[in-house]
Amino acid sequence: MNRSDIENWYQDLQTRFCEGIEAIDGSTSFHSDLWDRPGGGGGDTRILSDGDHVEKAAVNFSSVWGETPVQLTEQLAAAGDSFYATGVSIIVHPRNPHAPTFHTNLRYFETNTGSSWFGGGVDLTPYYLYEEDARHFHGVLREVCDAHEVADYRAWKQQCDEYFRLPHRDEARGVGGLFFDHLTDRLDEVWVFQRQLGDRLLDAYLPILRRRIDLPYGEREVRWQEIRRGRYVEFNLVWDRGTRFGLETGGRTESILASLPPRARWDYNFEPRDGSAEATLLRVLRDPPRWWI
Amino acid sequence: MNRSDIENWYQDLQTRFCEGIEAIDGSTSFHSDLWDRPGGGGGDTRILSDGDHVEKAAVNFSSVWGETPVQLTEQLAAAGDSFYATGVSIIVHPRNPHAPTFHTNLRYFETNTGSSWFGGGVDLTPYYLYEEDARHFHGVLREVCDAHEVADYRAWKQQCDEYFRLPHRDEARGVGGLFFDHLTDRLDEVWVFQRQLGDRLLDAYLPILRRRIDLPYGEREVRWQEIRRGRYVEFNLVWDRGTRFGLETGGRTESILASLPPRARWDYNFEPRDGSAEATLLRVLRDPPRWWI
Repeated sequence: MNRSDIENWYQDLQTRFCEGIEAIDGSTSFHSDLWDRPGGGGGDTRILSDGDHVEKAAVNFSSVWGETPVQLTEQLAAAGDSFYATGVSIIVHPRNPHAPTFHTNLRYFETNTGSSWFGGGVDLTPYYLYEEDARHFHGVLREVCDAHEVADYRAWKQQCDEYFRLPHRDEARGVGGLFFDHLTDRLDEVWVFQRQLGDRLLDAYLPILRRRIDLPYGEREVRWQEIRRGRYVEFNLVWDRGTRFGLETGGRTESILASLPPRARWDYNFEPRDGSAEATLLRVLRDPPRWWI
Repeated sequence: MNRSDIENWYQDLQTRFCEGIEAIDGSTSFHSDLWDRPGGGGGDTRILSDGDHVEKAAVNFSSVWGETPVQLTEQLAAAGDSFYATGVSIIVHPRNPHAPTFHTNLRYFETNTGSSWFGGGVDLTPYYLYEEDARHFHGVLREVCDAHEVADYRAWKQQCDEYFRLPHRDEARGVGGLFFDHLTDRLDEVWVFQRQLGDRLLDAYLPILRRRIDLPYGEREVRWQEIRRGRYVEFNLVWDRGTRFGLETGGRTESILASLPPRARWDYNFEPRDGSAEATLLRVLRDPPRWWI
């Protein structure tokens, strides 16, 4: 396992994921935007827009290096004065409000003083709750974790719930998934785990996408989707550490904000009607049930 | 000048502003949402939604007190352990993309150790540049400032440009206005100034709104408006100190985020065509001209 293995594998995952999404969408394809980072390195931001089934998807690979930003030295206690980081991040915003938004991020980090670690996260954000979707999603993640001694499903699931939260709304962003960071031990095994997780991402998400994209919907569902996407924006811009770090340290804005939804809406104090499907989702986000742990 | 004078005047301004906006919109009216703050005080958030000409407006009065949050003691070096704050904030998002978004905030703050100060800001965010609108807006603000020794038009205009900026875009939020804070000296005179500024807000904005709301527009203009409103969201959620402070200290989320636009959009790496009206606006936001100073 070395930098170039990791980079190659992330790029391969990027390509496979894009192909999987294109195959489901069927109407359009990803466009690749290659970019250089002034301080060292660069990336490939692939965007699919305005597809019949996928309204916006961003699959971003990057491999960057240079002087460690002060904010990072403080945040991660990285003693080195130079760093190397590579990763792939994926976000899919389907058009149909019955289909959930999917997000993942897998990353590897090194300092010139010999520290290195893996981190990552995967989570699902539905607009309408389908328990079978949540169960399927968590089930795949659990299967992957259970096959690896270095993975701690229960802890990482909980970290995901704690991380992808909107404290100012007292709501979860979605139904959760996995979140892990700064895995410095048994790196070879973590690397095997991370590859298997990457390999299974399409299994975790595509079956859900496939069974929701043809469900009928109307203006009401779109409005609710836009309101919930507003919450997604709030999380990403107010609370997400990666986004804030990127924007504050002069990262590439368009790649960082490629995760934002195509459309969002803010209605003052919107509350769904009691007993509605919208209220069901909200109840679960405000008070997550135990059944999917 | 005492707390109750200030509160009464802010509430009166709130009512006058709402009436002015309702008269122009002509189709609907503000709804008042009274709320209590658990730690002390409360407010009146007035919202107009889905009007023919005004898509969303929020005119918020609040008067709150209690234990000074730690974040505030650090930020403002307020030595007291209790505070009192009152203010009015106004945001108008017109429906027509040719009409600019308007924002203002006037506030008064006291600590139990005898510190007290005024602060405020006013700014205009067009989607299409009309120089006469920007000149008119700045002209009214300048007139108000020029009539008061305690007001420094040039400095406060510059502070506005510096404050309402998106560093991650290297863009101004709009065409600016005034920004002042922590005015602790000659409070009686500042209070006279602030009232006159409040009295002239309708003069600064309504003539602009009136001459733009009937201009023809289509899908292209709406899309551009939504993209620019996405920038407004980015500013408010990533950079605005008041918004972040409010969300991080458990302020009333719906009142704080009432400033967000009704709709927003994020298109990857959108750049308007050279020579278009959209490109003209962007050029001015990226490199503000000197003519309106």
